[in-house]
Amino acid sequence: MKLLRFGEAGAEKPGLLALDGTLRDLSGHVADISGAALSDAGLEQLRAVDPDSLPVVEGNPRLGPCVGSIGKYMCIGLNYSDHATESGLPIPEHPILFMKANSAISGPNDAVVMPRGSTKTDWEIELGVVIGTRAKYVSEADALNHVAGYCIANDVSERDFQLHLTGQWTKGKSCDTFGPTGPWLVTRDEVPDPQALSMYLDVNGQRMQTGNTGTMIFSVAQIISHLSQLFTLHPGDVISTGTPPGVGMGIKPEPIYLKADDVMELGIDGLGRQRQVVRADI
Amino acid sequence: MKLLRFGEAGAEKPGLLALDGTLRDLSGHVADISGAALSDAGLEQLRAVDPDSLPVVEGNPRLGPCVGSIGKYMCIGLNYSDHATESGLPIPEHPILFMKANSAISGPNDAVVMPRGSTKTDWEIELGVVIGTRAKYVSEADALNHVAGYCIANDVSERDFQLHLTGQWTKGKSCDTFGPTGPWLVTRDEVPDPQALSMYLDVNGQRMQTGNTGTMIFSVAQIISHLSQLFTLHPGDVISTGTPPGVGMGIKPEPIYLKADDVMELGIDGLGRQRQVVRADI
Repeated sequence: MKLLRFGEAGAEKPGLLALDGTLRDLSGHVADISGAALSDAGLEQLRAVDPDSLPVVEGNPRLGPCVGSIGKYMCIGLNYSDHATESGLPIPEHPILFMKANSAISGPNDAVVMPRGSTKTDWEIELGVVIGTRAKYVSEADALNHVAGYCIANDVSERDFQLHLTGQWTKGKSCDTFGPTGPWLVTRDEVPDPQALSMYLDVNGQRMQTGNTGTMIFSVAQIISHLSQLFTLHPGDVISTGTPPGVGMGIKPEPIYLKADDVMELGIDGLGRQRQVVRADI
Repeated sequence: MKLLRFGEAGAEKPGLLALDGTLRDLSGHVADISGAALSDAGLEQLRAVDPDSLPVVEGNPRLGPCVGSIGKYMCIGLNYSDHATESGLPIPEHPILFMKANSAISGPNDAVVMPRGSTKTDWEIELGVVIGTRAKYVSEADALNHVAGYCIANDVSERDFQLHLTGQWTKGKSCDTFGPTGPWLVTRDEVPDPQALSMYLDVNGQRMQTGNTGTMIFSVAQIISHLSQLFTLHPGDVISTGTPPGVGMGIKPEPIYLKADDVMELGIDGLGRQRQVVRADI
């Protein structure tokens, strides 16, 4: 299933992308794409609904983040071996974790707004993992059973805020609109191998990032198992699993950063695509 | 006013500590101590309620975190000049920000559970600041107008997870139960100067931390103004503003860490006290 949320920001309704390409309203069956609805049992109930019986959503509504009431939005840094090589950085011994503030989470096609004073806003396509059931002290072998599904995440980053405002990365990752998530949550039964997904990101039609989850240093299962040793992963938590080569900061001889009216387009095999116009906050 | 939340975890009701020391049930007047209830107008409405008209809550119920639906829990690192001196670390140029996962937030007297594999769980008393109204690009002069009130926060930290699991601090700050918050939100009208509050933390009756918010490197107003340049602060967001000297990691000649059955007791002028028993997660 491809689950989504449509409507105005903060008032999204749950929906489904049917096989015939129509958007269907799920609000008669579930309150939101969140919490218990993401468990295996919750997803099974939705799977039992005949899509043809659901109202078609007409027009072209805004899509919200594909998960509601996200508890924590975790990001893994430097998780692609080809990106580490490109950056000249050593392979980390454990997954590098930082948090993106929940207030940064946005819809897949919402504008990305560069905060005042920003000169180094950058892109990062990533595979997002949505937790479906509580995970604490889980093994790698069991880890993927706790996944509801997968989605695209753009871990938008202000490099000056991230690296030069003292210490921790979260400042540059948590600006408003820096967390486009969606368009859909694709349930895990439709993603047989999360370690074999190709992805790309274009800026103004030019290919900037090309990657495949096969070059992740820590697999989705390893990340979930590792994090679950530290704290509980809850239904609706999201893990953004790191970015492949090609971010603006790494471009030689000079980095390239986003500017107003730039357009980012990004996609992952089977998970759809996102499109964001960049705006300056005046 | 001293606002609080009482009852089982996840099902807390809003309450008030009356001047006569009784705990009063506010659930007839407000759904939760969160969101719009924290605005100046929301607090004014609660102030207009005669505490004697409210039902007395009998017994000794559990207290939850004093704010509900916390959006983001921000922590400032290394923010006391005497703590920086003690640690031999340079004064940071900007406030150091990291996030504590929302799933770590707990009641002021809930047990602190050391995760499996933890050998370096440490204490940190901090002044918590609760945002009352939306703050974006606010000046230092205006910053405190966006504060609903203040509370005690224990920024419990696993030092191995924080410092030796690669890079960012959030891993050691986000373990379940590592965010005791409360007992009360004391509204800002009752805290005339947030930069003149004494605080202490005892372990097993022995004084470990003594400090005063007067030695903060970045004041509450400076922190709010700085963060609001990066992203929006929303009602119900919490900022834990750093810890004074005396954490276990800094003890000479050998650090001291928490062990099962240890008791932490901590307090700040006018904001009450917390008490946590330490447990091992077996």
